[in-house]
Amino acid sequence: MYGLIGKMKAAAGQRDALIAILLDGIDAMPGCLSYIVARDPKDADAIWISEVWDSQDSHRASLALPSVKSAIAKARPMIASFDEHHEIEPIGGHGLTKAR
Amino acid sequence: MYGLIGKMKAAAGQRDALIAILLDGIDAMPGCLSYIVARDPKDADAIWISEVWDSQDSHRASLALPSVKSAIAKARPMIASFDEHHEIEPIGGHGLTKAR
Repeated sequence: MYGLIGKMKAAAGQRDALIAILLDGIDAMPGCLSYIVARDPKDADAIWISEVWDSQDSHRASLALPSVKSAIAKARPMIASFDEHHEIEPIGGHGLTKAR
Repeated sequence: MYGLIGKMKAAAGQRDALIAILLDGIDAMPGCLSYIVARDPKDADAIWISEVWDSQDSHRASLALPSVKSAIAKARPMIASFDEHHEIEPIGGHGLTKAR
């Protein structure tokens, strides 16, 4: 398995709108086992995203999906910065679920 | 929802054994929606844990479960340090699944 944990900052006042874009259309990502978007309660602009994929190739392939490309294009102007980006090797757990 | 993203370091050489303990018995945690344990590919001792719960109360209650208390007791001597600990407010995503 392959995973990512990242933290980004939305442009001021745009966090909830950005989260809505990040959550749109994520059910149709082949190989995605978990994809969770969260607010940071200590920072009004910060968003955490944690992802698990069956392989790094599936993650790479997802970036070429029309729905994902469209979401990235919409999201980009609303992102102020990328603060953390960690690749991880998920071993197991609860909530790892095949997407469509 | 309530969540945690944390990074800990295992005592040298004990990461895989610690991960096995962290993954044991996690299916029986009421209110747990996601619980994923991962290796850090850049640090041979580091472990990432990301958790989503239906509420902070469910997370607190899990710490009193006999299975969890036993796992914490076994794990503690194998943990060298806690490096990161972030509370998060999950909004949605894929892979949020009710445990037993």
